[in-house]
Amino acid sequence: MAFSVAVAGASGYAGGELLRLLAGHPDFEVQTVTAHSNAGQQLIDVQPHLRSLAHLTLVDTTPEALDGHDVVFVALPHGKSGALTAHLSPDTLVVDCGADHRLESETDWARFYGGEYFGAWAYGVPELPVGDEEQRSRLLGARRIAAPGCNASTVALAVAPGIRAGVIEAQDLVAVLAVGPSGAGKALTVPNLAGEILGSANPYAVGGTHRHIPEIQQSLRWAGAVNPTISFTPVIVPMARGILATVTARLVPGTSAEAVREAWESAYVAEPFVHLLPPGRFPRTSDVLGANTALIGLAIDEAVGRVVTVTAVDNLAKGTAGAAIQSANIALGLPETAGLSTNGVAP
Amino acid sequence: MAFSVAVAGASGYAGGELLRLLAGHPDFEVQTVTAHSNAGQQLIDVQPHLRSLAHLTLVDTTPEALDGHDVVFVALPHGKSGALTAHLSPDTLVVDCGADHRLESETDWARFYGGEYFGAWAYGVPELPVGDEEQRSRLLGARRIAAPGCNASTVALAVAPGIRAGVIEAQDLVAVLAVGPSGAGKALTVPNLAGEILGSANPYAVGGTHRHIPEIQQSLRWAGAVNPTISFTPVIVPMARGILATVTARLVPGTSAEAVREAWESAYVAEPFVHLLPPGRFPRTSDVLGANTALIGLAIDEAVGRVVTVTAVDNLAKGTAGAAIQSANIALGLPETAGLSTNGVAP
Amino acid sequence: MAFSVAVAGASGYAGGELLRLLAGHPDFEVQTVTAHSNAGQQLIDVQPHLRSLAHLTLVDTTPEALDGHDVVFVALPHGKSGALTAHLSPDTLVVDCGADHRLESETDWARFYGGEYFGAWAYGVPELPVGDEEQRSRLLGARRIAAPGCNASTVALAVAPGIRAGVIEAQDLVAVLAVGPSGAGKALTVPNLAGEILGSANPYAVGGTHRHIPEIQQSLRWAGAVNPTISFTPVIVPMARGILATVTARLVPGTSAEAVREAWESAYVAEPFVHLLPPGRFPRTSDVLGANTALIGLAIDEAVGRVVTVTAVDNLAKGTAGAAIQSANIALGLPETAGLSTNGVAP
Amino acid sequence: MAFSVAVAGASGYAGGELLRLLAGHPDFEVQTVTAHSNAGQQLIDVQPHLRSLAHLTLVDTTPEALDGHDVVFVALPHGKSGALTAHLSPDTLVVDCGADHRLESETDWARFYGGEYFGAWAYGVPELPVGDEEQRSRLLGARRIAAPGCNASTVALAVAPGIRAGVIEAQDLVAVLAVGPSGAGKALTVPNLAGEILGSANPYAVGGTHRHIPEIQQSLRWAGAVNPTISFTPVIVPMARGILATVTARLVPGTSAEAVREAWESAYVAEPFVHLLPPGRFPRTSDVLGANTALIGLAIDEAVGRVVTVTAVDNLAKGTAGAAIQSANIALGLPETAGLSTNGVAP
Repeated sequence: MAFSVAVAGASGYAGGELLRLLAGHPDFEVQTVTAHSNAGQQLIDVQPHLRSLAHLTLVDTTPEALDGHDVVFVALPHGKSGALTAHLSPDTLVVDCGADHRLESETDWARFYGGEYFGAWAYGVPELPVGDEEQRSRLLGARRIAAPGCNASTVALAVAPGIRAGVIEAQDLVAVLAVGPSGAGKALTVPNLAGEILGSANPYAVGGTHRHIPEIQQSLRWAGAVNPTISFTPVIVPMARGILATVTARLVPGTSAEAVREAWESAYVAEPFVHLLPPGRFPRTSDVLGANTALIGLAIDEAVGRVVTVTAVDNLAKGTAGAAIQSANIALGLPETAGLSTNGVAP
Repeated sequence: MAFSVAVAGASGYAGGELLRLLAGHPDFEVQTVTAHSNAGQQLIDVQPHLRSLAHLTLVDTTPEALDGHDVVFVALPHGKSGALTAHLSPDTLVVDCGADHRLESETDWARFYGGEYFGAWAYGVPELPVGDEEQRSRLLGARRIAAPGCNASTVALAVAPGIRAGVIEAQDLVAVLAVGPSGAGKALTVPNLAGEILGSANPYAVGGTHRHIPEIQQSLRWAGAVNPTISFTPVIVPMARGILATVTARLVPGTSAEAVREAWESAYVAEPFVHLLPPGRFPRTSDVLGANTALIGLAIDEAVGRVVTVTAVDNLAKGTAGAAIQSANIALGLPETAGLSTNGVAP
Repeated sequence: MAFSVAVAGASGYAGGELLRLLAGHPDFEVQTVTAHSNAGQQLIDVQPHLRSLAHLTLVDTTPEALDGHDVVFVALPHGKSGALTAHLSPDTLVVDCGADHRLESETDWARFYGGEYFGAWAYGVPELPVGDEEQRSRLLGARRIAAPGCNASTVALAVAPGIRAGVIEAQDLVAVLAVGPSGAGKALTVPNLAGEILGSANPYAVGGTHRHIPEIQQSLRWAGAVNPTISFTPVIVPMARGILATVTARLVPGTSAEAVREAWESAYVAEPFVHLLPPGRFPRTSDVLGANTALIGLAIDEAVGRVVTVTAVDNLAKGTAGAAIQSANIALGLPETAGLSTNGVAP
Repeated sequence: MAFSVAVAGASGYAGGELLRLLAGHPDFEVQTVTAHSNAGQQLIDVQPHLRSLAHLTLVDTTPEALDGHDVVFVALPHGKSGALTAHLSPDTLVVDCGADHRLESETDWARFYGGEYFGAWAYGVPELPVGDEEQRSRLLGARRIAAPGCNASTVALAVAPGIRAGVIEAQDLVAVLAVGPSGAGKALTVPNLAGEILGSANPYAVGGTHRHIPEIQQSLRWAGAVNPTISFTPVIVPMARGILATVTARLVPGTSAEAVREAWESAYVAEPFVHLLPPGRFPRTSDVLGANTALIGLAIDEAVGRVVTVTAVDNLAKGTAGAAIQSANIALGLPETAGLSTNGVAP
């Protein structure tokens, strides 16, 4: 028997990816799709790539429309889901792909987002550590889940094993990310225009202002870091999807190369969706396009005393919608890998 | 009266950009173009964008073909120009766009390149410091010039002012570059295929192995650094040209924000081709496409204690061919800006 | 019980797409993957996006390696599969993604390809008409199938219904295709380099020389055309995958707009993978990326007396590997849609 | 002595390209730049690639701001320049890059644009025929010039010689264009977002509705056509700039291949900016990026009875701003090539 599903924000990029994955999921049946300005239109007219869902019509995003489903996925701009989902039954599994329920610190929320604070939910990156456990343990049976920020989870997956194992320092991390513009959604701004992005690499939120920074720090604290600090610079590059995160960290003096690699290997060896590549190999974003996979390459730069990690994630899949579904699988007691592919669409 | 010019390696990307710029230069007249496998073909058949040079025919790359010109630009793979240019008259201005004459340290050469070492020439980045002077002073009247590695000069321009001024540390620099594939030339390898690069971000030379690292360190030593260290990671992104270098450095404790900005401002305020952007502004590679311009944005990330610089350069223009021509202008006593545009081709 | 599968040419783009689709197919189990120069390597090292097949090793492409499987998919350059597959058991289902068995006319083969002619197999585009039937009827129980040329099947699907219904003329068709470079495989040539393709639109095979022309004409004859003629121009554009075919045909004088639309609607209304879009809607290649879907938009340009069709196909999926698997499903009596998605990966 | 210049609409893509070209023009001095919502900003903040014009400030677009210059270039949306420029002195050279003054037929204007009709000006494509002369003759001494629509002039340049020479028919032309999104300007619409365009080929205005169709027909009538008809389909592809137009025309029966080629050769042999490529060669848009060059490749497809032309133009340069400046050069008695490059920026 399939769980009934509603998707709020079905006209956007994250909503579209949720629906693409849900359409191929054996245990979910999408019954309701909601939107704001596109309400009343056929879903296929707004998301013309979702042929198998051509029978669905977008309705207005209201608590009533979302009510009565087993699972509600929410893909709305930050600040929009807190009030909306407060009305839903506590028995309904709600997975929020927005930022509203990611941060445990109200201070961080106020500083980086602002507006009413609705509290943190179980964090939808099962592979990340939280003390001696994994987030996975908090997701079991959960009914409120916050899917991660795509950049935040990518960076956290890249370095959390080393921090937990004590082989890298949690201060003075440096992350530079090549990211596709779909992460910005369909916001109608000049910097999002194709003319601005084609043939160019464009930085934004330089110098410590990006909203995913406190979310990264939270994950690093869960991994055991005290007062972690990270320099974080995202660069938009001309690919629709994808994150390639180069994250470097200072090697704890005296640590052996074997101990470094062992930290990541032991963390991810049993994971279905997060993989450490062999020495000398590094991932490309096309390797994970459309997949729920995070690939991590790792090198030690002895000359500078840093561990260099390069991590590839599809921002819409493992970065957002895939993480949401993977977490929902866990919460509902389904096989964690149900409906999720590990293979990228390449070239 | 125009200087007569030969370009060796005219069939490649760097050679093509040299010719594009030379074709618009008021003081140079391209008389000879050479190639290897394309010798015997019309230049326009190999470089169909160079309409104004349609009268030229590629000849074989030999000392005889290059002899007798006022200026010889060489754009050959590393290891190919040392022996070739040794035969040219000392009165001829030779500008090498390859790596053969960049490194002053034979040890570095042996470690990162190998093969016969031919010694270092004047380094073709006029704006970089060398002790209390600028490289410009070494270029005046020079007859042997090594144009820089595109990544190396971009990173050096990004941080040299801070090192010279003592506001950032020269150890533990971290550089991550988004670069276009034209930097790899026309080498026929699978990673250079369009199918591999379109829609993807692809790292290479991760972990301290890139050949431009010793060249960067050399520039930083010229700027006053002692034993500089840098983590350097290039990422190929789907744009034909361009480098966007995010280079961060630890702030020297106690340094004021004003002192930081002043270091870069004073270094570049009088430069025609290198510009520090106002606070809060950061460059895009499209801003400098085809231009001999380096644009630098700078922020201080207090939370992590790092200065963050983002620098945009066209790898083929200011990164290679433009630097070569700018340096040749200086060497020959021409206006430094002759034949070089500061404006990018955007969008 | 799953059918055992071998894939010959598993290191290329078509082979990679076959494996990606096969990995998600409920009734196939890939046991053997073969290659030429990559033989001996792990598949995952050559196709790093195929995580779920990381256990496979590439072996040399020989009849022995392919022998003994229920199904053999062949993705080799043209001229390579004819002799290779002649040795395989007649009970084995062989699906050739190359050109060797597409053309019924030995004269066409000699003129456009040359070399030994091995005869035509059942043509792997089930939706195309052949007389009063569909190709589907020839595929039932077949053990030798020729998957189509991606451009050829796209153009044939675009106009065959109109020709069969007699509402458009079969002479003076004009087709212009925007295509991604993956269609050219991993051939190491200068025109396939990223530097040549990024930021540019590049025509090739202009003026009636493309090898898919006789294959298109063959399909049109199957649809009832006598001496069909078509002007065919492909243009490489900077997207990894996809074909957007604009095919126009002269309207048969006196035909009503209703009759035109009815021709396509009746042809495809029951098809799971080929869809006529509503009036005023036209497809984009991103709508079908990774999907086994062909989307057709249609307009009548009264002023010029032409029917204009715009058809989007993923050249590697519905254009090649998806068609191969769809045809294999039919041949083996499996559900035609098994293992094939109708949804694109967008954006 | 330089002519004083104002540019209206300096914040858009066409305005930016005008300024880039004007900045390198020896006889023009840009004194005034105007905008709408960006008025009050520094030009460099809106067009960060125009370093050499960093001293200019955008002012509001009013007749007063434009008054008093020798030359006024207007790059506004259609319908905006008619009233604005009516106030300017008849002695001022006004070059309109919008559509307001291109069409001689008020009926065409009403049908494809609508709103007040302001009459046609001299058409800024000097190389096109008009009866026994060229448009060039109408531009000599002109003080009101309409720069062309980029698609319209590209198609007209592609086929006008054949029509004038009587070797191709003027009915049933078929044009399919691969175009970059910069042609749509900075309009904030979902289809213009990078997420929609990256990795995809997207048709628009299919079936005879594009506004450049009557402008093409007008040019063909000037070339001698009676009731020309053309099927015209533009396809947006993921490159910032460029038009690759594949235009085919029925060969007039009995015409020799020599006569066909001679028609184009004689038309363009003396042109500095329009070139017929040798047999077997076809242009790419990267060959003309940033250049004022149109390159035409031509083949005869005997099997289908069509002449196939493939023409590459930079939509912003030769397609718009370059054409405007070339025409202004003629009007003012300057060298026609002043300030305009024939060389593309490639790769």
